[in-house]
Amino acid sequence: MTAIDNRTAAAAPAVSLDDVRAAARAALDPRVWDFVDGGSGTEHTLVANRAAFAELALVPRVLTGVAAPHTAAQLVGTTAAMPVAVAPMAYQRLLHDGGEVSAARAASTRGVPYIISTLSSYSLEDIAATGADTWFQLYCLRDQAKNDELVGRAEEAGCQALMVTADVPLMARRLRDVRNGFALPPHVRAANLDNGSSSKAHRGADGTSALAVHTSAAFAPGLSWPDVERLRRRTTLPLIIKGILDPRDARTAADLGADAVVVSTHGGRQLDGVQPSLRALPGIVAAVSGDCEVLLDSGVRDGTDVLKALALGARGVLFGRPVLWGLALGGEGGVAEVLALLHTELTEAMTLAGCGDPAAAARLRTERLRPHA
Amino acid sequence: MTAIDNRTAAAAPAVSLDDVRAAARAALDPRVWDFVDGGSGTEHTLVANRAAFAELALVPRVLTGVAAPHTAAQLVGTTAAMPVAVAPMAYQRLLHDGGEVSAARAASTRGVPYIISTLSSYSLEDIAATGADTWFQLYCLRDQAKNDELVGRAEEAGCQALMVTADVPLMARRLRDVRNGFALPPHVRAANLDNGSSSKAHRGADGTSALAVHTSAAFAPGLSWPDVERLRRRTTLPLIIKGILDPRDARTAADLGADAVVVSTHGGRQLDGVQPSLRALPGIVAAVSGDCEVLLDSGVRDGTDVLKALALGARGVLFGRPVLWGLALGGEGGVAEVLALLHTELTEAMTLAGCGDPAAAARLRTERLRPHA
Amino acid sequence: MTAIDNRTAAAAPAVSLDDVRAAARAALDPRVWDFVDGGSGTEHTLVANRAAFAELALVPRVLTGVAAPHTAAQLVGTTAAMPVAVAPMAYQRLLHDGGEVSAARAASTRGVPYIISTLSSYSLEDIAATGADTWFQLYCLRDQAKNDELVGRAEEAGCQALMVTADVPLMARRLRDVRNGFALPPHVRAANLDNGSSSKAHRGADGTSALAVHTSAAFAPGLSWPDVERLRRRTTLPLIIKGILDPRDARTAADLGADAVVVSTHGGRQLDGVQPSLRALPGIVAAVSGDCEVLLDSGVRDGTDVLKALALGARGVLFGRPVLWGLALGGEGGVAEVLALLHTELTEAMTLAGCGDPAAAARLRTERLRPHA
Amino acid sequence: MTAIDNRTAAAAPAVSLDDVRAAARAALDPRVWDFVDGGSGTEHTLVANRAAFAELALVPRVLTGVAAPHTAAQLVGTTAAMPVAVAPMAYQRLLHDGGEVSAARAASTRGVPYIISTLSSYSLEDIAATGADTWFQLYCLRDQAKNDELVGRAEEAGCQALMVTADVPLMARRLRDVRNGFALPPHVRAANLDNGSSSKAHRGADGTSALAVHTSAAFAPGLSWPDVERLRRRTTLPLIIKGILDPRDARTAADLGADAVVVSTHGGRQLDGVQPSLRALPGIVAAVSGDCEVLLDSGVRDGTDVLKALALGARGVLFGRPVLWGLALGGEGGVAEVLALLHTELTEAMTLAGCGDPAAAARLRTERLRPHA
Repeated sequence: MTAIDNRTAAAAPAVSLDDVRAAARAALDPRVWDFVDGGSGTEHTLVANRAAFAELALVPRVLTGVAAPHTAAQLVGTTAAMPVAVAPMAYQRLLHDGGEVSAARAASTRGVPYIISTLSSYSLEDIAATGADTWFQLYCLRDQAKNDELVGRAEEAGCQALMVTADVPLMARRLRDVRNGFALPPHVRAANLDNGSSSKAHRGADGTSALAVHTSAAFAPGLSWPDVERLRRRTTLPLIIKGILDPRDARTAADLGADAVVVSTHGGRQLDGVQPSLRALPGIVAAVSGDCEVLLDSGVRDGTDVLKALALGARGVLFGRPVLWGLALGGEGGVAEVLALLHTELTEAMTLAGCGDPAAAARLRTERLRPHA
Repeated sequence: MTAIDNRTAAAAPAVSLDDVRAAARAALDPRVWDFVDGGSGTEHTLVANRAAFAELALVPRVLTGVAAPHTAAQLVGTTAAMPVAVAPMAYQRLLHDGGEVSAARAASTRGVPYIISTLSSYSLEDIAATGADTWFQLYCLRDQAKNDELVGRAEEAGCQALMVTADVPLMARRLRDVRNGFALPPHVRAANLDNGSSSKAHRGADGTSALAVHTSAAFAPGLSWPDVERLRRRTTLPLIIKGILDPRDARTAADLGADAVVVSTHGGRQLDGVQPSLRALPGIVAAVSGDCEVLLDSGVRDGTDVLKALALGARGVLFGRPVLWGLALGGEGGVAEVLALLHTELTEAMTLAGCGDPAAAARLRTERLRPHA
Repeated sequence: MTAIDNRTAAAAPAVSLDDVRAAARAALDPRVWDFVDGGSGTEHTLVANRAAFAELALVPRVLTGVAAPHTAAQLVGTTAAMPVAVAPMAYQRLLHDGGEVSAARAASTRGVPYIISTLSSYSLEDIAATGADTWFQLYCLRDQAKNDELVGRAEEAGCQALMVTADVPLMARRLRDVRNGFALPPHVRAANLDNGSSSKAHRGADGTSALAVHTSAAFAPGLSWPDVERLRRRTTLPLIIKGILDPRDARTAADLGADAVVVSTHGGRQLDGVQPSLRALPGIVAAVSGDCEVLLDSGVRDGTDVLKALALGARGVLFGRPVLWGLALGGEGGVAEVLALLHTELTEAMTLAGCGDPAAAARLRTERLRPHA
Repeated sequence: MTAIDNRTAAAAPAVSLDDVRAAARAALDPRVWDFVDGGSGTEHTLVANRAAFAELALVPRVLTGVAAPHTAAQLVGTTAAMPVAVAPMAYQRLLHDGGEVSAARAASTRGVPYIISTLSSYSLEDIAATGADTWFQLYCLRDQAKNDELVGRAEEAGCQALMVTADVPLMARRLRDVRNGFALPPHVRAANLDNGSSSKAHRGADGTSALAVHTSAAFAPGLSWPDVERLRRRTTLPLIIKGILDPRDARTAADLGADAVVVSTHGGRQLDGVQPSLRALPGIVAAVSGDCEVLLDSGVRDGTDVLKALALGARGVLFGRPVLWGLALGGEGGVAEVLALLHTELTEAMTLAGCGDPAAAARLRTERLRPHA
């Protein structure tokens, strides 16, 4: 891992994403690390997401003749080199000055879609201009006209899908950030929003972080299904609803014409104590019964995790924090290496499981084990 | 948290109840801390109550249009700002000289019922005079006339419900208190009982605490359902039976005209090794099938815990030790802050779960996970 | 605990059996401690027995009117002050010079049967002469005539039941003893056996302990059901088969006229990795369906454990190592205190669970929880 | 353990395989230790295999009259002194200069089959010349003619069965080896392969170990069922397929005429995160329903583990790493002692479980417990 190793000369080379994580933690300002790494409340869900992967065992197939599996997948109409997209994550200039632009270039290099956050610290146009396959993630704003404007800009810039986040009626209290009095540095701002209010570092008197105050001020608090219907009519882009755990909500999304739902706990950063994404996945796959795609988010940390999600019926996964680790360590090169490592791991896992392509992975059996600490 | 922070100037501000707990532990005499914090026997139930909350996962709803949920609830006829009442707890002057009077004032400020213990260290009349919504908790005394007198005083003082404790045929051995030779200081006495015998600090020769000896001397040892029937006829106040874990007992309580039952392990302080309250809850909700309200006690430590209890069918919860932590740290102000923090957490949790009111919370799905240490 | 405290003057008084255990451990020669405390193999079963109790939760009843429960029980025809008998344990002079005689006197004082081991270090006649209610435990010897002689002596001495141990076709390797080169000191011998060969301290060349070598030499290796039938015909005493885990074996025992079976893992000292006794109990209760009594052995460490065994259908329990702890610390007085503490705990637990007698305990519900470390 | 103790003079004698493991770890070059001990990826499967044994409880039978069980078994036509074969393991000269020749001699002494790895560091002819009962394990090479040649050599040398490894379409990344830059020392080479390319110590630029590079170069990457059919036709030796976890694959193997399948996770060294072998076993036993033998591999560490595998339907087990520990400590003598210890433990376990022979073990009941750390 050249780019990453450059930043951690004395350290051992990174052979797993855990290595990358440790190096990123060592390299980052602890407050930024906490912002990236932390979850909400007591971080039960953060831990539970990982436990859900750890306790799920795969049952591989043998002698299938697979030597070099095809990892490519169609995700909501976008061709991806593997069934993975870079998750939408805010303010990536916190990690590296190249921010979203560098990350998107790396995604492009590795052939996976890059999802632009409403709260990106480069403009969506700048990011789309990298030539990456991009999707645009929308936090619905209080000002409906601005939402329409954002969607229009995303269409104009060539984004290939619109992803509406459903699980942020407000930003949950992330206690690490509250304790750290975390606020954005001046040079990091929400580049897509004209007022740039997020750049004002301020801490709420009632124990919330500056980001939460900003989010609360800007975002529409009572988003509902009619808003989704309006967006469905507003754009011809594929529509993805992100942040669903209850199968009834997934069914509603499919009925309203969503092209995909993302089963997600928001990386353990919204309601603490919820069902881990991986545990919710099979019920949601059953509920939509093929009427829309199902993507999984939250907790994916290596190639076998991707394979586990596929085995439980996901079409693909979103891949979040590890991309930020790579970005922190090596900018574009670091992200590219992280994605390459994931691809290596997934290819190996598919080969060892006898899966020639993602569709074969969906036929693997699994068993839930008990966690062994 | 102003009042609490005053007491812990050098410490970090309290952003969670765990912070409040740690500060209270640091501030209190270790023997008083043990009296508050401890459970009976090997404290299995104390731990199991928390584990039961930790292993229960919520399945939130999205896009429900809820921006600011209504947390208000009717609990046994009393309107509460949230589905929470302050649990009955003895001898609150151990924590702060303002004792029950301060705590009740704070409950009143935050709009939640305050339950007066038979063993309160201010008289029930003094506590009721705060203007708080109060319920009176009765430990049946050996002298039946005194029970009637206590009930009459509670009615006279304006208490809005009578709560009979069913799970203390004797006080369990709490080993921390036994080891500490714990006894009440002279200024703390059972103000509702005329002999004030509890003020005599004495330790039983056979390894029991002074409190246990006193309890044994004063309380009726063989309470039974006919006693409940007598109380039901004695008062027109709503009647609540506290301390039920077996659905058959809940059914009997409903049949005898109880307005509510409290599923409780007595905070892990009576029979050690029992089923955690949260695990017993669904069976009891099913057994009473709407014929009386079901409240949950034991182990509630944050807003998501309240939401979990509602999701399993509780009408509301009793909230105990954290109130004492706040009382220890800041008197009335400390309790008010603890209750405000719980309200903030519950409001956030309901918003994030898409629940516009407690009734919506009752329709949430849940899943039991395995504990991850 | 006067007798125990005499031995541990500087230590805190014992308020639980865990305290007694810690004091005994501190007081004993580490090799003797290991002999008492250890299990076979990797000691999985030793741990699993305790975990089985810890994970079983009781569902208490309330308002039953029980103030002072009757703990007395009939165990295989013997009236006991509580549903407990002192388990058969070898070589008790290792713990205290009074050995089995002191322990039996204490059992008599507390009104519980004392089970004399074939390998007792006082003769069965000496032990029976204490006036305690005694049962005789038989390890079948290679020499059939000696078995008959032992049974005859037990009858003659007034023993009230014959307990045949079924789970020692050979003595399992107990690695602590093997590592310690454990052997009996000269003054401790198998007083019931005329050759006294156990007094020769020798260590087997193939990594077994001296006790194992002796056991192998003296005991019949291929005991079978016809041997039980022969014993059934040989004596009119109640016959108890100890060491059963498979329900099919319990059924056979009942069919052959056994008056009781003891569900046991031999305290985790025979086959390592077996089902814990408490887990095996319900299946065995169902299999014998009242045709013989079912006793539980292995892992009972406090009064709630006894109540748990009763709730799962046991008629009573055998109580082992804690008796040895008491013996080590205070001889007869120490054992009496240990038994008194257990009785106090059981009485409290039955009161708190609303059980007026052991039969009521059998109607309690239970739930299996997950272990919380 | 004479041979082993010679190597660890100051240490306590080995009374369990855990002792042998600790001594081997202390004696070996850490990189060789990691090569032997490590698994792939995050080593989840390595841990899960052991947890699966630990959580399975046996239900022993009593009074069966078994004094000295017959441990002998027929494994794929070979008579073995116990239902155990030495697993195929590569490059045994890494542990001791005597390598496979010493290990095979010890296996012969103890009467168990020795399985020769394709990657043995002595030639299969040298190993077979020891007179041991040998089976030959085949990694299918890219060059089909060489496969035929290897099979022919194995037949010629007197190997009694052919075992085809199905779970190595590529060698998984073993992170310990990658981090250690592990490569074979010059004197250790794949003696059965004429080019001996494995002796070139080189490390892949992309973070793989030298062994993985070699494996990838030499082995056929896309092995499939038609290859098995070809081998079935090619030889009259009993055919064993090793590395099966999915019952559908086991069924296919039986249908194609395999004489046995080996349920295996490759010792936790191939796809990480798979179902532990022991958990997969019952489903596979059911799927083949007696049409071929089922052997278990991965995680066997003592005699009760063997008994557990038999109880779940295995005909026998492969025994791997402990043999290497013995080899490292004492060469032929060390392996003989390890096998003797296993035999002692198995004999004891069968006696204590009342099993007169392996068939009786298959009738034991089991119960799955929760793990207790």
